[in-house]
Amino acid sequence: MDEFEFIASYLAPLAGPGGLGLKDDAALFKPEVGKDLVITKDTMVEGVHFPHGHYGKRTAEKLLRVNLSDLAAKGAMPIGYLLSIVWPHSVDQNVFKDFASGLASIQKAYRFKLLGGDTTSTRGPMVVTATLIGEVPEGKMVKRSGAQLGDEVWVSGTIGDAHLGVRQVLGKPIDPKPKSANVKKFEDAYFRPEPRLTFGQALRDYANSCVDVSDGLIADAGHVAQASNKKLEIDLSNVPLSKAVQEWAGQDVDRLKALVTAGDDYELVFTAASENATNILAEADKVNLQITKIGTVSKGSSIHVSDKNGKIIEFEHTGHKHF
Amino acid sequence: MDEFEFIASYLAPLAGPGGLGLKDDAALFKPEVGKDLVITKDTMVEGVHFPHGHYGKRTAEKLLRVNLSDLAAKGAMPIGYLLSIVWPHSVDQNVFKDFASGLASIQKAYRFKLLGGDTTSTRGPMVVTATLIGEVPEGKMVKRSGAQLGDEVWVSGTIGDAHLGVRQVLGKPIDPKPKSANVKKFEDAYFRPEPRLTFGQALRDYANSCVDVSDGLIADAGHVAQASNKKLEIDLSNVPLSKAVQEWAGQDVDRLKALVTAGDDYELVFTAASENATNILAEADKVNLQITKIGTVSKGSSIHVSDKNGKIIEFEHTGHKHF
Repeated sequence: MDEFEFIASYLAPLAGPGGLGLKDDAALFKPEVGKDLVITKDTMVEGVHFPHGHYGKRTAEKLLRVNLSDLAAKGAMPIGYLLSIVWPHSVDQNVFKDFASGLASIQKAYRFKLLGGDTTSTRGPMVVTATLIGEVPEGKMVKRSGAQLGDEVWVSGTIGDAHLGVRQVLGKPIDPKPKSANVKKFEDAYFRPEPRLTFGQALRDYANSCVDVSDGLIADAGHVAQASNKKLEIDLSNVPLSKAVQEWAGQDVDRLKALVTAGDDYELVFTAASENATNILAEADKVNLQITKIGTVSKGSSIHVSDKNGKIIEFEHTGHKHF
Repeated sequence: MDEFEFIASYLAPLAGPGGLGLKDDAALFKPEVGKDLVITKDTMVEGVHFPHGHYGKRTAEKLLRVNLSDLAAKGAMPIGYLLSIVWPHSVDQNVFKDFASGLASIQKAYRFKLLGGDTTSTRGPMVVTATLIGEVPEGKMVKRSGAQLGDEVWVSGTIGDAHLGVRQVLGKPIDPKPKSANVKKFEDAYFRPEPRLTFGQALRDYANSCVDVSDGLIADAGHVAQASNKKLEIDLSNVPLSKAVQEWAGQDVDRLKALVTAGDDYELVFTAASENATNILAEADKVNLQITKIGTVSKGSSIHVSDKNGKIIEFEHTGHKHF
């Protein structure tokens, strides 16, 4: 099977009308009047963002999920995407079908279509890139830079499950072993993060700023602080942890710090005026999503993390950097 | 220098307003009413699309040039782009500035801005991907699928200079050595292909179909044939060659076949009704671009290449495939 057969057999069936059957040089996209486009592009490299040899469905799914999470953080709904796949020479061609099935399941779940892209091959590790196009009503994108003095800082879901998931996947010890550990659940947190699209859309009316947690909770909240030119004060003891992660972390400060700097959570961190709290909680409840207040916004331009006694916790690094 | 310093120092100055200083999860793009968007995404892998170790300006330029060429083939003008860079671990950080200067020069020449993207690193070869967004007046994109019975087939510029350029760059023999060979010119054809944007824009009013030559003249004309469900009959003796390439190829059929299947020319192949020929020639003349009639469109769905005596020339392969 060559490049063109792969595209015709497995990718063309995933294309929307603007994809022109993936037979043209480019995709045609007709924007809707009254909408702004929100465009995000994330790359995943084998051995960096996903484990060696995971070429199939899981990687296809994760690629779309992490890009959808960026759209969720901006309050945008997905419309279409372009895909670039750099296959390793060594790949077994049975993987092609498996990869395409991962794309198909996410497209179906979140209702968007393939528009175009590029496939090639390499003697090195696999590299996949997706460019997702989403839309918001004009002027309604939720930015990182909008945090206001007095805002409350919130986070969706729980933090750290993906960190234990990646340890599991890479065969690293998880010590102490949590009693209520569910291996599958950790691995799912890592491979199948849930993009908070519906809730993100609701936040357009209530949040002043938002980011998704990819590099690490502290690093990404720090991006909001920097972009907004405000201080975000976060109480580490308020950061929501699943029962199993709590059992692993206990009161160990190093383990807690690992959880909030590991990244890959793909939860939303957002800031909002306190008068919106009731409405925000109601929106989260509609989609059965736990949300937790973890801090406040004050004067400054950085992030401060303290324990429950108000003692500042220092971080040598706040999250993942890629080089 | 880490990922965020690289972005802040070298990429943020290249960003347009929609790039939000490259400090957000996504780019914000406000489409203009009455325009369609044309979106293309091309990836280049070290050792496949550019020579090993060429991490700087030349690769940045070529990445944008080949994506601009896709827009040119659709009659679109560029507005902005998203960029993904996967740096090899071994890269000398002085390269960063050089790479950014390549982006800057192309942005300036063709008047478009960086909107966002992603940077990471790898133990393998460098991989770079750009997603370019262009626009055309509503309904005016030139497709591959529009070739009509009786159309003439044209090509811009000359074919094959990049093929000799890549031989040069890779240290392969160029034998016989053309008398009028200009090493710099061959290398420029390979590294710095000129996207035919202004001419492509003019073709919106005259051409029925268009493609740019990336995989190879015969392969790409074949894509038009297939997408349009027509036969493209091409006379190999009419394919325009520069003087130096003519001297190399002579009457050797194998060399001529190599030239029209090697790709990397980034010239436009288009089809148009014969009554548009005068206007098309006038538009090409305005931008000082040579264009040449190389064939006709008839019933069928494939490509037929013949010599000047009308004898069919068989091709074992018609162009580059990536795996």
